[in-house]
Amino acid sequence: MSADNEQQAREQLIDLAAQFYDQFELGEIPHMDVPTRTKSNIEYDEDLDVWVYGDRTSTRSANSVRGARKLLKAVYTIEFLSDQLEQDRSSTLRELYYLSESWDNENAQFNDQDESNQLVEDLEIVSGATREDFHMRPEESGATIMGPLFLREQTRRGEREIHCQEDVGEGGYQIPNNPDTIEFLDSDAEFILCVETGGMRDRLVENGFDEEYGALIVHLKGQPARATRRITKRLHDELDIPVTVFADGDPWSYRIYASVAYGSIKSAHLSEYLATPEAQYIGIQPADIVEYDLPTDPLSDSDINALESELEDPRFQTDYWEEQIELQLDIGKKAEQQALASRGLDFVTETYLPERLEAMGVL
Amino acid sequence: MSADNEQQAREQLIDLAAQFYDQFELGEIPHMDVPTRTKSNIEYDEDLDVWVYGDRTSTRSANSVRGARKLLKAVYTIEFLSDQLEQDRSSTLRELYYLSESWDNENAQFNDQDESNQLVEDLEIVSGATREDFHMRPEESGATIMGPLFLREQTRRGEREIHCQEDVGEGGYQIPNNPDTIEFLDSDAEFILCVETGGMRDRLVENGFDEEYGALIVHLKGQPARATRRITKRLHDELDIPVTVFADGDPWSYRIYASVAYGSIKSAHLSEYLATPEAQYIGIQPADIVEYDLPTDPLSDSDINALESELEDPRFQTDYWEEQIELQLDIGKKAEQQALASRGLDFVTETYLPERLEAMGVL
Repeated sequence: MSADNEQQAREQLIDLAAQFYDQFELGEIPHMDVPTRTKSNIEYDEDLDVWVYGDRTSTRSANSVRGARKLLKAVYTIEFLSDQLEQDRSSTLRELYYLSESWDNENAQFNDQDESNQLVEDLEIVSGATREDFHMRPEESGATIMGPLFLREQTRRGEREIHCQEDVGEGGYQIPNNPDTIEFLDSDAEFILCVETGGMRDRLVENGFDEEYGALIVHLKGQPARATRRITKRLHDELDIPVTVFADGDPWSYRIYASVAYGSIKSAHLSEYLATPEAQYIGIQPADIVEYDLPTDPLSDSDINALESELEDPRFQTDYWEEQIELQLDIGKKAEQQALASRGLDFVTETYLPERLEAMGVL
Repeated sequence: MSADNEQQAREQLIDLAAQFYDQFELGEIPHMDVPTRTKSNIEYDEDLDVWVYGDRTSTRSANSVRGARKLLKAVYTIEFLSDQLEQDRSSTLRELYYLSESWDNENAQFNDQDESNQLVEDLEIVSGATREDFHMRPEESGATIMGPLFLREQTRRGEREIHCQEDVGEGGYQIPNNPDTIEFLDSDAEFILCVETGGMRDRLVENGFDEEYGALIVHLKGQPARATRRITKRLHDELDIPVTVFADGDPWSYRIYASVAYGSIKSAHLSEYLATPEAQYIGIQPADIVEYDLPTDPLSDSDINALESELEDPRFQTDYWEEQIELQLDIGKKAEQQALASRGLDFVTETYLPERLEAMGVL
């Protein structure tokens, strides 16, 4: 599965280099067309339920010294990535940037890491492959899973078969940087519960929520890493079970939900790979603050600004979010996940989550 | 091992409550003496090679309404912790804060989380136990281990025996919040290598450095969590092998090293539990920047200030650190771990680390 992607990614990279070659042969100035990555060139794909780039493209052309240097760097990077895939090795974005210092052509060396990061994104978009297919590892590591899932991970040291309750410690199964090396062998899970904070993740595991309700508990660790979003999407698609997101009741946590469900505008080319538009928000909802009379903090000015800008954000333009955000602006309060402990340590697993999951039709 | 600590912690908490009772009976105003936690009451313990509190104490007394409320909160907290230990449950500091809202005496409720955190620290110091012995989980989770180590973790769901190379995926073994639930069964490890960044940790694992050199690779993930420092100390003490710290070559990373080796002044009561004074710094050293001609960034003003304040910090008052810090101020440059990739992806595992480990007498 994963080896195929990589073989394909390698071929697409080489095709790209071949294009430059053909352009030279035809007497054309070498160039590469990339979709324009601005807010005005982002469209909502109704069928896929994700954001994708529109039709506008920008051209990287060798018709200037600066442009020629950019293409030279692209060719060096393509060669590096192609060799890396052939040797079944991998590297980080930061290593690529530093590595360019060892390239023999000084004009091919990156000026800063923004430049190399941007080039790898361009190559992702143009080749239709992902950074992970190129064997570029993210810097940020993924989080953990605990729940009824038996999987096989293809590691560099051979296959590992791991049950995410029986073969792991209380810390759970550590998601590898490229979750496409994982095959799901068997699962009794009823749904996926993505949890923002470590304290709440640990509460759910201590209370045996995963065992009692057949929940796959995915720790998001704040804003989730690519690996965490990717595995969440694959779990949803391949196990065909609902995804729910459990976060603090403030605008920053709603963005965490949005990044799981819709991805970011900056990486619209990855939406199909990383986003789970079917993900539902469990809470903490502003309505919960009222209903369960939770301990709160007042909204700060930056909270209020963030909520107001969410009202303008197309990802939040649904009746549900408009109602919740307006309610929150109205009550002027926010609450954390762990505020549920004010009703006792078991309230979240015995009352709150079962009630919410039932109301959402998940249980 | 761990159950004993907890039984002892529970008894010490109850003794503390009994003290208040005795004070009442003797007609004394109830009070509790706590070591003064200021810089001037910190001393270097030459024997233990760690920082400990001096002889000065502060008294929390019920001779004012404010003082009486503090002791009432302490008694409620002691009752909660004692029940929690009896029921073999656990909770986070944040849950404790919220939970106080459910206590029937309004005067016992915490005003903010600083207050509850501070009280738990006081109880740690007075009882000589640790937060983990009270079953208070940290919010921040520990990082991961990869290497030749076979361990048994006592989980709430039974024992798990895990080999940290053979039974884990590429992400490694996730350190639980309380590493004292772990027993080390067997290990061929020659030394421990604590690594600051995820990108470098992954490079070492990909290159099989743990297998080739018998290294236990502990990912620090920046400033290490308590669980990570605790397990590092236990690995050092129980396996009787050297600890080395591999970080970026800048003042913030030297602080990461110092937190592994010496702990922080704020938590001097935990030094014996968390600090590994034998830990050695591998690099990136300022001397490496010169010797290996690494790609660098110029020191910022805040870097320079941090280096200058390290020269005043007793934890850095050794010939080694003075020389390195002065060299760095002199060259005005810093370099990241991953800058070693400018010499090729294998330079770190084939050249840099073997040379450094040999120079340090570890290999």
